[in-house]
Amino acid sequence: MEVLYGLHPVEEAIRAGSGRLDRISIARERRDAKLERLASLARSAGIRVSAEPRDQLTRLAKTDAHQGVVAYLRERAFLTIEDLLVPSPGNHSRFFLALDGLEDPHNLGALLRTAEGAGVDGILLPERRSAPITATVAKTSAGASEHVRIARVTNLVRALEQMKKANIWVVGLDERGTPDYTDFNFSMDCVLVLGREGAGLHDLVKKTCDHLLRIPMAGQVSSLNVSVAGAVVMYEAMRQRRAASVQPKAAPPAATPGKRKGLGSL
Amino acid sequence: MEVLYGLHPVEEAIRAGSGRLDRISIARERRDAKLERLASLARSAGIRVSAEPRDQLTRLAKTDAHQGVVAYLRERAFLTIEDLLVPSPGNHSRFFLALDGLEDPHNLGALLRTAEGAGVDGILLPERRSAPITATVAKTSAGASEHVRIARVTNLVRALEQMKKANIWVVGLDERGTPDYTDFNFSMDCVLVLGREGAGLHDLVKKTCDHLLRIPMAGQVSSLNVSVAGAVVMYEAMRQRRAASVQPKAAPPAATPGKRKGLGSL
Repeated sequence: MEVLYGLHPVEEAIRAGSGRLDRISIARERRDAKLERLASLARSAGIRVSAEPRDQLTRLAKTDAHQGVVAYLRERAFLTIEDLLVPSPGNHSRFFLALDGLEDPHNLGALLRTAEGAGVDGILLPERRSAPITATVAKTSAGASEHVRIARVTNLVRALEQMKKANIWVVGLDERGTPDYTDFNFSMDCVLVLGREGAGLHDLVKKTCDHLLRIPMAGQVSSLNVSVAGAVVMYEAMRQRRAASVQPKAAPPAATPGKRKGLGSL
Repeated sequence: MEVLYGLHPVEEAIRAGSGRLDRISIARERRDAKLERLASLARSAGIRVSAEPRDQLTRLAKTDAHQGVVAYLRERAFLTIEDLLVPSPGNHSRFFLALDGLEDPHNLGALLRTAEGAGVDGILLPERRSAPITATVAKTSAGASEHVRIARVTNLVRALEQMKKANIWVVGLDERGTPDYTDFNFSMDCVLVLGREGAGLHDLVKKTCDHLLRIPMAGQVSSLNVSVAGAVVMYEAMRQRRAASVQPKAAPPAATPGKRKGLGSL
């Protein structure tokens, strides 16, 4: 059974109320105010709470960094790409994230946390060649992995093609991309594709992208860490979309459906 | 003696030519093309290269993730705050970063990497209660720790007061800050202050800030990881400063010296 550990991630999971939390175990030895509060929060959400020896929690969490609490999760039900593509209520443009073979659980966790913070509408994760959503990912994400909408896809290229057909721009991040990310108009529906640590986007994925964007590097190091790069672009997209919704007159002309013209200066 | 390890970080350090590299050791057992290329790069830069057993490199690096190369560094000469405050050539506004008690070496390394990429003019690090610049930091920074200008200060609050006197805005990042970071005018001289993981800025540091900025969070998780938050703001500052230098007419009015009025909408 999948587990989640740590005060903050478990509290987030309880508050998410996703129905995935089966029960939680609290260390028998150390029962401080924070743990007691968490236990009563769980009980009032209808989740069973048991006390177990600290060593047992360490075995379950596979680390002693569990802060005295481990949560047992039911199997996660991933969405399909069709679920993600259901039009959102309201008229706002959509922003998706696709991760092309990310392998580091800390990077994945950090990206899920940022995606949740930046209001990303959904995330595409390939089934293979990609870090699974483990307890480490959940903890690094500060619980955000329980809140974000994730679709697992068998073939990322096919999924991106499907998004293109739904008039969603496919935008990759690449060190040798041509327009700077700040010159791209994110007020249209789009999906941001991030590549592997070090190696970047797979060739076929790169070819599927409508645009390859670049983050300017002022110094001598050639690239940012992928979770940082993703954050910079997600928040620039959020900034542009908020600016467009606050000041409709200052916003760029809406994208003409059918005409695929991705660049605009804001 | 301080060491640095890994192909990429060592190559960056050689290219930085800072004179800190004393010599490098390469694994005797595995000598592939990449290591040979690195060795000849070092030799042509006048740096001694020796071959040592792989186990010895692992002992020196305190990890086996050294990829067959370890570099020995001379003691790092940190700058003083006065060094940082020497006016930069050209007329561009300056952007500094101050880290208030960051403890995680991965966060520190990630921030140094991003700071280098975003063209930050200098970094203030407190001498105590802060992660030292270890080999882990250097590696996480992808070598950027060797390129960025760092001043170690005994008292961060005093250093920030000194920056204020030099007409540099002191801007903290805080979950409960009032203006959104995108509403701040970064085309003026300023220093961005980032707090500890979890606990944020120390009270006294917070009181020293002219403004406390906030990153909007669209979801349920209350904050971003500190290295991600720092990156989002550093790149927004870069975007604003580039926009101001490219299109002088579209830029906001220059800050009047003496008048401390930090907010402007861009």
